[in-house]
Amino acid sequence: MSASGGSISAKKKPGVFYGVGVGPGDAELMTLKAARLIGAAQVLAYPALPGRASLAREIAAGVLPEAVEELRIEVPMTAERAPAQAAYDTSAARIAAVLESGRDVVFLCEGDPLFYGSFMYLQARLAGRFCTEVVPGVASPMAGAAAAGLPLAARDEVFSVLPATLDDAALRARLALCDSAVIMKVGRHLPRLRALLESMELAARAQYVERASMASQVIRPLAEAPADAPYFSLILVVKGADPWL
Amino acid sequence: MSASGGSISAKKKPGVFYGVGVGPGDAELMTLKAARLIGAAQVLAYPALPGRASLAREIAAGVLPEAVEELRIEVPMTAERAPAQAAYDTSAARIAAVLESGRDVVFLCEGDPLFYGSFMYLQARLAGRFCTEVVPGVASPMAGAAAAGLPLAARDEVFSVLPATLDDAALRARLALCDSAVIMKVGRHLPRLRALLESMELAARAQYVERASMASQVIRPLAEAPADAPYFSLILVVKGADPWL
Repeated sequence: MSASGGSISAKKKPGVFYGVGVGPGDAELMTLKAARLIGAAQVLAYPALPGRASLAREIAAGVLPEAVEELRIEVPMTAERAPAQAAYDTSAARIAAVLESGRDVVFLCEGDPLFYGSFMYLQARLAGRFCTEVVPGVASPMAGAAAAGLPLAARDEVFSVLPATLDDAALRARLALCDSAVIMKVGRHLPRLRALLESMELAARAQYVERASMASQVIRPLAEAPADAPYFSLILVVKGADPWL
Repeated sequence: MSASGGSISAKKKPGVFYGVGVGPGDAELMTLKAARLIGAAQVLAYPALPGRASLAREIAAGVLPEAVEELRIEVPMTAERAPAQAAYDTSAARIAAVLESGRDVVFLCEGDPLFYGSFMYLQARLAGRFCTEVVPGVASPMAGAAAAGLPLAARDEVFSVLPATLDDAALRARLALCDSAVIMKVGRHLPRLRALLESMELAARAQYVERASMASQVIRPLAEAPADAPYFSLILVVKGADPWL
């Protein structure tokens, strides 16, 4: 149909790379948009630790289409960045091949795609060549606050998200300058974090939340947190005496 | 049916007070749970500024049941807290009367209920007497990042939410200690914030996002932000050079 001759071969329009947040764990905390895109997907991709089930896929299991091609993206969790970067390079190439064939890829993300997720590493590799769209999701700090019934922020308050991997001095300086905080990825750092919060007189009102919004959710005052906290646990610190009145 | 005599009058079980996040603006960014609870509600409540339509109700308009009782909660936006507190006292009493009649109340919240919302003021007044449940929602920082295609946080990064109402010294100290930040409720503070971010050499990569995820959404580099920024606008500051690789 081209008016300028037939020498240009017909090329398929590339697919769109979707990063879709599936929320913190409860499948009902997926957005309507996430459920629609996942339910209509031809090709799904999702992150998984080697040898483990994908949490993002488990959350979305109820809305998966019957016939769908699946790309499992395995990324090693190592202190060095190089192995993860190599895995993302390989994964981006697999996804690019699907997109080049004209099919969309829906990448499932626990929580929100741009909040401590795998998606952003793939987006960084693919966004220059392909159309990408991010569907935000409910993030775990909001699910943790909902579970504990505690406010994250009101009026002029500052809210900070702090990874548990920071050292005590870094955590202390940042905790001093916010009104509420969520410390993420608690896991094995729990005893150290508890001691730090006690030394700042912030422990008494801190809440420990494990697997927020999931059936296996645990909420306890920090003093009663289990010794074997999993990676997907957080500590909610609300400093204000009565911050929402 | 009571075995201990008939003198205790039959009392209805009180209703549940639900705080339901409807997300940042796009109706499809409501969660499945929010849509289910709203669609089945007998009594809906929502915040509104005096004389204005309720944004939370507008977001949920597509899933409202046909016959539903509506409680419009008007709260004045004033610098003093007393007028707002009086309005919340009155509103809590109206909601309590419905809950005492045995009916649930579904309170609609823009974004997430515990993240700068009206719900927490009502929850503080009602949680002691009634069963409350919070359904978290997609918050505007996540919607803003999705719109801009920029990461909020990766790996060991610190993410902070800063109200635009803080003074320059307070903002400067907190911006210095995070890797990314969202400055909320920009509105009339835009020129001052732009000057501050320029002085910290953070302006060049900052993005201005207005009404994230809505049909009227605006995204621009901060330098090109409009002079008349509305209240529902934010500035996304991502400091890392290439934070997600």
